[in-house]
Amino acid sequence: MSPGEITTDSWMTGHPPAPDKVIRFGDGSFYQWPQLRWSFNHMEQLVPTKAAWRGPGASRPLERDGARLVESDITLADGTRLSWEEMLSTSHTDALAILHHGKLVYEKYRGEAGPHTPHTLMSCNKSLVGTIAELLIEQEVLDANALVTSVLGELQGSAWADATIRQVMDMVVGMSLDENYLDPTSDVWTFIRSTGMIPADQDNLITLADFLPTIAKEGQHGQVFAYREPNIFVLGWILRRVTGRGLNDLASDLIWQHIGAEHDYLFMVDSVGGETTASATLRDFLRFGLLFTNQGRVGTKQVLPTRVVESILAGGDQEVFAQGDYGNLHDWSYRSQWWYRHVAGRCCPVARGAHGQTLYIDPERDLVIARFGSSPEAPSSLLDPIIWPLVDTITEQLA
Amino acid sequence: MSPGEITTDSWMTGHPPAPDKVIRFGDGSFYQWPQLRWSFNHMEQLVPTKAAWRGPGASRPLERDGARLVESDITLADGTRLSWEEMLSTSHTDALAILHHGKLVYEKYRGEAGPHTPHTLMSCNKSLVGTIAELLIEQEVLDANALVTSVLGELQGSAWADATIRQVMDMVVGMSLDENYLDPTSDVWTFIRSTGMIPADQDNLITLADFLPTIAKEGQHGQVFAYREPNIFVLGWILRRVTGRGLNDLASDLIWQHIGAEHDYLFMVDSVGGETTASATLRDFLRFGLLFTNQGRVGTKQVLPTRVVESILAGGDQEVFAQGDYGNLHDWSYRSQWWYRHVAGRCCPVARGAHGQTLYIDPERDLVIARFGSSPEAPSSLLDPIIWPLVDTITEQLA
Repeated sequence: MSPGEITTDSWMTGHPPAPDKVIRFGDGSFYQWPQLRWSFNHMEQLVPTKAAWRGPGASRPLERDGARLVESDITLADGTRLSWEEMLSTSHTDALAILHHGKLVYEKYRGEAGPHTPHTLMSCNKSLVGTIAELLIEQEVLDANALVTSVLGELQGSAWADATIRQVMDMVVGMSLDENYLDPTSDVWTFIRSTGMIPADQDNLITLADFLPTIAKEGQHGQVFAYREPNIFVLGWILRRVTGRGLNDLASDLIWQHIGAEHDYLFMVDSVGGETTASATLRDFLRFGLLFTNQGRVGTKQVLPTRVVESILAGGDQEVFAQGDYGNLHDWSYRSQWWYRHVAGRCCPVARGAHGQTLYIDPERDLVIARFGSSPEAPSSLLDPIIWPLVDTITEQLA
Repeated sequence: MSPGEITTDSWMTGHPPAPDKVIRFGDGSFYQWPQLRWSFNHMEQLVPTKAAWRGPGASRPLERDGARLVESDITLADGTRLSWEEMLSTSHTDALAILHHGKLVYEKYRGEAGPHTPHTLMSCNKSLVGTIAELLIEQEVLDANALVTSVLGELQGSAWADATIRQVMDMVVGMSLDENYLDPTSDVWTFIRSTGMIPADQDNLITLADFLPTIAKEGQHGQVFAYREPNIFVLGWILRRVTGRGLNDLASDLIWQHIGAEHDYLFMVDSVGGETTASATLRDFLRFGLLFTNQGRVGTKQVLPTRVVESILAGGDQEVFAQGDYGNLHDWSYRSQWWYRHVAGRCCPVARGAHGQTLYIDPERDLVIARFGSSPEAPSSLLDPIIWPLVDTITEQLA
């Protein structure tokens, strides 16, 4: 155990748990550290959820390969050398698994995590929602080039008034949002409370439908990559409006019933039942990633149409990405709620979520890496110095 | 649609739902009528849950019989004749299904209910917990004749101080509990708030571990059937303490993974993560019932040991039951958190839950009837005048 890493074994254990070992959503303790290590592995025990059903069939086993990955040292950009165990603990890893040529070459769970324990995906959920959007475009239910307001009249007069659905999907909408996290009265806190992802004033609930229309335009659309949270809620709202269905039902019908999932995909909900982020098990997260190394197929069944897979694997505009404020990510792009790491001529989709949630797909190398974490700090940028050397080490070893 | 029946189609639909169509747990609207019809079919979207996993396998199909039940009239004890449709609507039926010789001869969903929609079981969950207790007795993990306090030292000095675990299971513990539902300061409301099943004062949370030890003894144990809610929470506490596991994990490992369930069994939780009641789909509820017409087997696999099935099918003491205050139930008994209807020499286990939840098992006739409801009033006694003539009509027709 590395310095600063605290065992969470005693949180919420025994019945009743010791009073100082109780974790609740309403009092905010779920998001304190180290409590969040327990919380991230048990979100459905803290907040309401809407399930994307896994379907009636048997789950699709993930076969193990005889040749397991060697737990080698990782060398960081600054020359620091970490043993595998140090890498796991320093980066507050909850779970890590690797599929190579569709077979499990590594699988590890730590602390509260386990193969049957759904873990929060945080913003990795965006990439599933983006995939649903691509599916609905392919089905001609959604027109990516249409204005947002052709679907959501509520957003007339807002930042999205003259934005297209594609611009929302690609996070190139210019908007004004006071993101001063140090000021509890700033827009961003009102926004986060309206998502239901932190406790809200129950007597003065502000919903996303109240808040999103108040966000004003700033700058131009389509020119600069700007990873702004409200876009995913606008996209979710669009998908619900055009289909008349919940994201959970869409996710189940279009994806989760077809990948051989072992567990349901569990959306958190806001105060009016709108799906926000979600939890899933690591193996199911891998199964989702496997769609993109397998041309959208599960076995012989085409689950994602080829054009959807091609659209997502194409990656985004690196020029537009470089205009954004993500200096630590060189040669990256963003499209359809997926990040892309362009490395040695390959374009690798990445789902990224706060506190260390990662799904990395390298179609050319036929490699899928899924990782759950519970870092004390939210920003993914703080983990990038470990994650990418780790990914490169794994990739090289499996080459 | 019968008088007084209100369609719930517009609750929580669209995004966002109309403000007067929003249902929430925290403001108590979930339990107003008709809102509770939506709530009972979507509890997991209103409150946190702990899943008993259905396992990785394929669900076990419920085959349909060619010979479907005829929707005949039902004649009540007072001579009133109801058409089948009147029976369904007057009793606020959400779902009704019938297995005869293991095959579906009837299946109906109304309003918010559907084959893949988990519905609250209310106190029918007790019978699943009682079945787990019987399994743990068979495994010699639990000693039914031991004192409660041999497991739970916390209950020294309470009503359970000199009660046995068997007496808790059979609801024959003499206790003092002010059940004046009209007085919001009465014991019973403190108790219900401590279960987390209604909104509690978040700044002054009282847990079951705080409250149960304050309940005093009144009268003698073992002599009078007294269906008192606190017993099930004591039993759940005992099961957690002797196994060191949650009821969800016990339910999954011992039962839910083995019946071919399509969906997880979803426990609600109290403020410290203790499982309370649960939701399940109607078909899975039937699959649970089927264990008892099939000698504990699913296919050729013995899921419940024969002695567990025999213990539950034996029924309870009708003399002790008759001493209780259940005048409308003639020739009934109670044992191991199951009710029994003794009819024409047959002893039929019944799981009963408030607002119309029912699982009726007639092993001799190889008949399982599952019913979900959302009556405006909680007491099962108000539905008995329709439920039992209905059951008799079904039984006669299938004879």
